[in-house]
Amino acid sequence: MKLLCFETSAKTASAAIVSEGRIFAEGSLTTGLTHSQTLMPLCQSLMQSAGIPLREIDLLAVSTGPGSFTGLRIGISAAKGLAQGSSKRCVGVSTLEALACNLMGLETLACPVMDARCKQVYTALFRVSGGYPQRLWPDCALSLEELGEKLEGFQEPVMLTGDGACLAYEALAGKLPLLRLSPPGLRLQRAASVGFAALAYLKNGEPVPPGELLPQYLRLPQAERELLKKQQAAQAASMEE
Amino acid sequence: MKLLCFETSAKTASAAIVSEGRIFAEGSLTTGLTHSQTLMPLCQSLMQSAGIPLREIDLLAVSTGPGSFTGLRIGISAAKGLAQGSSKRCVGVSTLEALACNLMGLETLACPVMDARCKQVYTALFRVSGGYPQRLWPDCALSLEELGEKLEGFQEPVMLTGDGACLAYEALAGKLPLLRLSPPGLRLQRAASVGFAALAYLKNGEPVPPGELLPQYLRLPQAERELLKKQQAAQAASMEE
Repeated sequence: MKLLCFETSAKTASAAIVSEGRIFAEGSLTTGLTHSQTLMPLCQSLMQSAGIPLREIDLLAVSTGPGSFTGLRIGISAAKGLAQGSSKRCVGVSTLEALACNLMGLETLACPVMDARCKQVYTALFRVSGGYPQRLWPDCALSLEELGEKLEGFQEPVMLTGDGACLAYEALAGKLPLLRLSPPGLRLQRAASVGFAALAYLKNGEPVPPGELLPQYLRLPQAERELLKKQQAAQAASMEE
Repeated sequence: MKLLCFETSAKTASAAIVSEGRIFAEGSLTTGLTHSQTLMPLCQSLMQSAGIPLREIDLLAVSTGPGSFTGLRIGISAAKGLAQGSSKRCVGVSTLEALACNLMGLETLACPVMDARCKQVYTALFRVSGGYPQRLWPDCALSLEELGEKLEGFQEPVMLTGDGACLAYEALAGKLPLLRLSPPGLRLQRAASVGFAALAYLKNGEPVPPGELLPQYLRLPQAERELLKKQQAAQAASMEE
C-alpha cells in the first residue's frame, strides 16, 4: 500500500511517498517561502522523479495539527483536493505523534515541541523504545514554564524534537539537567514520519473520506481569541453599568 | 556556510542543502530509475523551491564511496561539474561514515552495511554516543561471515543501517542476539548526512579543488577483477608449459 504524505504544520514543507517500512521518495524544504508556493511543485516533482503517478497511490496522509493555522490548511487542502479528485481516502495524524516517529530507533522519552507563539508551545510526551512511540501525554498547548514543571517528575533523559526544540532547550535545560536536544537530522517535521504514523493508525483504524479530514488546532485561531476577549470585556463592562 | 550535497552510492539518489545544524532542503528518491535521470532534476528543483541559487552555495559535498561504481561516478561527476563551473571547492566523505551520521542522537554501536554483490558487503563500525559518530573500524569489504565473526566480540547492541542492513540482519541475527535493525526512517543513504559528515571534516580538514575528488572503491571494478584473474590464469598456464 502506497501513501502520499504531506507535512506543512510549521516552517518545513514536506512531501513523501511511503509504504510499510519503505520510503520511495521524500522531499523537505525549510525556507522562508510559503507552503502554497512550494508544496504542490515539490509533490509533483517527487512523483515524476519517482515514476509513481497518482493512480498508483492508495491513500493520502497528512499531519492535521497542532501547528500553524495557515500551514495546516494548505497541507490538508492539498490532501483533500488530490483525494477528492481521484476518489481516494485519507488519514490525518497528529503532527506531534509524527514528530515522535522521527526518533524511532532511540531508547528515550521523546518530547516534540512546536512554537505556538503567544508564549506557548504545542507539545506531548512519548516513550520510544526502538519501535513505534508509545503516547504518555495527549497533545496540549502549554507555557514553557508549565512544560518544565511537567517534565520535572521524570528521572531519565528526555529528548526534545521539533521546530520548537531549541526554544524549549534554551529555556529549560538549566533547570532540567536530563533534557537533551535531538540532532538536527532528526529534528524537523518530515512527511515520511507522517506516513509511518498513518501506517500505524491503519493497523486498527479506518481511513476517512476527504470531507472528514479536519485540522486539530488545540487553540482557537488568534482572530477568534481576540473576538472572544472583546466580547467578554464588553459583557463585563455592561454588567458593571 | 551552505553546502550542496549529493549521495548516489546505492539505490537512493539524494540531494540536500545544509549548513551547520540546519537542513534547508533535502530530497531523496529510492526507485528503479538511474541516478543519471534523477539526480540533476532533483537538485535543480530543490534549489529552485528553496530559493537558493548556486552562487549562494559555498562548497559541494559528495559521498565518494564505497558503493556502486556507476552510482559514485554520477554523484562525483555532478559535484565536480557544478564546482568546476562555479569555481567552488569540494569535500568528499565516506559513504559509510555518512550512513553512521543517520544515527546521530542514538547511544549505540552503528554498523552501516551496503550490499557489495559477489557475496560481500561494504561495512565499518562506529560508536554513536549522541553526537558525531566515532570510527572504530576503517571502511572495508567483507563477506557476511567475516562481518559476523568480527561483531561476535561485542557484548552490546549493534545497530545495522544502510541498504544492506536487512541482508546482514537476516544472515546474522540468529547467531548475534544483540544485533538490531535501524528503523526505516534512519536506514537509507541521505544527502543531509553527507553534509553533516562534510561539516565535521571541515573542522580540521580543507576542501579540495574539484579535480582532486576521487571515488573510493575499496575493491577493483568487476572488469578489472576479471582481467586480473585472466592474466593470472594465463601466467600460471605459461609457467606450467
